[in-house]
Amino acid sequence: MSDAADPRAPIRAGIPEHGRVPKYFAVKTRLEELLDQLGEGGLLPTERELASGFGVARETVRQALRELLLQGRVRRKGRGTVVAGPKLVQPLSTASYTEGVRRQGRVPGRNLIGLEQLEADRVLSGELRVEVGAPVWHMERVLLADDERVGLESTYLSVARLPYLARDFKPDTSFYGFLREQIGVEPSVVDERIETVLATPREALLIGTPPALPMLLLHRSSKDADGEPLERVRSLYRGDRFSFTVHLDKRI
Amino acid sequence: MSDAADPRAPIRAGIPEHGRVPKYFAVKTRLEELLDQLGEGGLLPTERELASGFGVARETVRQALRELLLQGRVRRKGRGTVVAGPKLVQPLSTASYTEGVRRQGRVPGRNLIGLEQLEADRVLSGELRVEVGAPVWHMERVLLADDERVGLESTYLSVARLPYLARDFKPDTSFYGFLREQIGVEPSVVDERIETVLATPREALLIGTPPALPMLLLHRSSKDADGEPLERVRSLYRGDRFSFTVHLDKRI
Repeated sequence: MSDAADPRAPIRAGIPEHGRVPKYFAVKTRLEELLDQLGEGGLLPTERELASGFGVARETVRQALRELLLQGRVRRKGRGTVVAGPKLVQPLSTASYTEGVRRQGRVPGRNLIGLEQLEADRVLSGELRVEVGAPVWHMERVLLADDERVGLESTYLSVARLPYLARDFKPDTSFYGFLREQIGVEPSVVDERIETVLATPREALLIGTPPALPMLLLHRSSKDADGEPLERVRSLYRGDRFSFTVHLDKRI
Repeated sequence: MSDAADPRAPIRAGIPEHGRVPKYFAVKTRLEELLDQLGEGGLLPTERELASGFGVARETVRQALRELLLQGRVRRKGRGTVVAGPKLVQPLSTASYTEGVRRQGRVPGRNLIGLEQLEADRVLSGELRVEVGAPVWHMERVLLADDERVGLESTYLSVARLPYLARDFKPDTSFYGFLREQIGVEPSVVDERIETVLATPREALLIGTPPALPMLLLHRSSKDADGEPLERVRSLYRGDRFSFTVHLDKRI
């Protein structure tokens, strides 16, 4: 259901019961109607044209456009602004990012940023069930969908369990496929925690987003079918490009 | 795992490999260390004191504090700023908000904003399996945890299925408890979609958040044990106060 299900949503969202709709918000509501008319990929008029058309200051238009940009309703294209496509919908599942994106008919990809060894601190030691100080892989990859950068993923793994990761793993392929081939296991029990955070400057640079864009952060702990810890993952997804679904059935 | 698991996280987050850490971000990193020292509820020095202590402009301190506020690391208290507590962790489950908050040892509450009848449009008609134009309840409530406003929930229900809702339901009690008593059903199959959005001015006012705070929005469709549609819910949670967990086990 879009908010359109409540016929008064756009008006009510501007707090008319308090008699004061912020000017930028009224402009944003009118812009949203315009986006629907233009359709995905449609080019918006310039800020100057919009300001003159709505009879408001350019700063007012800019504020409305800034929110639409943060929400993923529009995106920059060259020097212009175009109507963005819908958010990707990814199921929360034990499957990998690669498999999730493929199921949506998009081409997944990953660019390696770094693969290095750290020493496990107390927290990682507990999560991966290794000694404090034991070597741990930290693999960092940019997540792609149809060549668009959509996220950033840090994976932590026990070096003792995967000694030849750096030698044998091709970073642009499915890591879970590699796990199945190398050690015959895959994540079977997964705990995830999802929250919204702001991109740090480094993250914004790597993913190519405006700084301080709201992101969805997934903290993931995976165990294999024997309950043995497998990986600790920190996946950051563009909040303007992703949503996640879950199906819950208490009958089974 | 906090980011502290990667010993270089705070430095790396400021993109040192490109040689340019934004000034506000360096201040933010130092403020985060200060927050850890002060502990929950601790009072921060004033902006003026912080600017002078760090040797930066007040606007730089303000930008760092703004991000810490949006992320829920600090909160306003009177005219000061204090260290905020950790985010609430709520399982994604078929259970209600009320039950979820209670399990965390907090006192749930709900304030009714409005209960009214709408006519089902095409979307709601499909989701609630009623005719287009059939009467639908729209119940809007502010969600509370320990008397703090943390979210805003809109529930849509078929009037034919719950004709006496307005007469019999006490809005500050558990709605799922009411469903069990009145019609002997509860949500058994739930589909949820989670995304991050910005609070509208009206939502920010009702929840008492800064406008444009990143929120977590849960779209929920519930069916009873017979697969009959029960409710359509739009739950908005403060992104600075909530995170959600899910447990996935492909072995069962």
